[in-house]
Amino acid sequence: MKIDILSLFPEMFSGFLNSSILGKAIENGIIQVALINIRDFSRDKHRRVDDYPYGGGAGMVMMPQPLYDAVSSIKKEHPAARVVLTSPRGKPLVQKKAQQLSQEEHMVIICGHYEGIDQRIVDSIVDEEISIGDYVLTGGELPAMVIVDAVTRLLPEVLGSPRSLEEESFKGGLLEYPQYTRPAEFMGMAVPEVLLSGNHKRIEEWRREKALEATRKFRPDLLES
Amino acid sequence: MKIDILSLFPEMFSGFLNSSILGKAIENGIIQVALINIRDFSRDKHRRVDDYPYGGGAGMVMMPQPLYDAVSSIKKEHPAARVVLTSPRGKPLVQKKAQQLSQEEHMVIICGHYEGIDQRIVDSIVDEEISIGDYVLTGGELPAMVIVDAVTRLLPEVLGSPRSLEEESFKGGLLEYPQYTRPAEFMGMAVPEVLLSGNHKRIEEWRREKALEATRKFRPDLLES
Repeated sequence: MKIDILSLFPEMFSGFLNSSILGKAIENGIIQVALINIRDFSRDKHRRVDDYPYGGGAGMVMMPQPLYDAVSSIKKEHPAARVVLTSPRGKPLVQKKAQQLSQEEHMVIICGHYEGIDQRIVDSIVDEEISIGDYVLTGGELPAMVIVDAVTRLLPEVLGSPRSLEEESFKGGLLEYPQYTRPAEFMGMAVPEVLLSGNHKRIEEWRREKALEATRKFRPDLLES
Repeated sequence: MKIDILSLFPEMFSGFLNSSILGKAIENGIIQVALINIRDFSRDKHRRVDDYPYGGGAGMVMMPQPLYDAVSSIKKEHPAARVVLTSPRGKPLVQKKAQQLSQEEHMVIICGHYEGIDQRIVDSIVDEEISIGDYVLTGGELPAMVIVDAVTRLLPEVLGSPRSLEEESFKGGLLEYPQYTRPAEFMGMAVPEVLLSGNHKRIEEWRREKALEATRKFRPDLLES
């Protein structure tokens, strides 16, 4: 999978791209990540990429031309690349969306910034707007990393064991059951006895019950849907 | 505000902590961020921090002792520090939660990993579990960055203009209206006339209408609540 990230702050990605799982996926050629500085596509002599919003209001809006040229330069060689914009206006990222995106051969992620980007870019070259949650961030860089991480780990051979994917959060529509590891007693707190019983049926029942309990407590909305 | 981040991969934070707005907040002493490697608190001679889950199942669970010792070493000097665990089991991060956290003087963020952390740690020293969204990530590092970013930008003097905070996404319970900047015509696409009219009342009405339209289209759930 090829991933092009268009950002005004490509240096923000350094620690992330060198992280253990992603770094290995890049090293093994499972993904190729290119960081593209939007500013390199400015035709302004001061390399400006933003301007005041029409109609007034606070903040600056990203100009259409640099983004248009940056995406066009990719599309010219890869017309099928899917263009994603990180945006608080987007559809919420959920696990199913990450699975869909993991089927793409080539993804372009535009990191939004300032008060937003010129809507004509959204209308003409963005395939979908994705939001990672209902909170405000300083820019689209962290959302881009979240999308890349969620998508990459679903690619074959990125995680060691396919079982790691199977049992994890959200797969069954429930939160995960609580986990315990050694020692059996820690600071006076004991591991629930059932987990030491070796009775796999009882363990499974207990885990399902605990998963339901946690979901009821923290995320009743997951049970409704 | 003081923020201590407990992670197995502190190197992942380098690009983030040097990013423009956060880097300045650190430079100006508005926040102090400390990266703490959980592994440094292992008492194992191989510096192990994880072990097999009781009751079986895929993956590894973070052992209680290193986390307990790491948090205790902070709490000893700062008993009021609020301990947050990034976890898919947590309450969803929303803007209101970011605002609450921005009132804290001292926040400790534990980055979860592997299949989870020993539940006894959650029960004994974690004040709250926070999830940044319904998707699975390789670890808690990106969620920690998201929390730090969302919280930090709400601190006084971090963003230049207080107006930038006022008008932005989610404040009014609606998605943002579309933004446009120069040129008035780009690749045959014109800026909506009303924005060039100079009539502030009409512009405000149009923006509110467009915000409603986008919310109805992308996030009808926001209108219900």
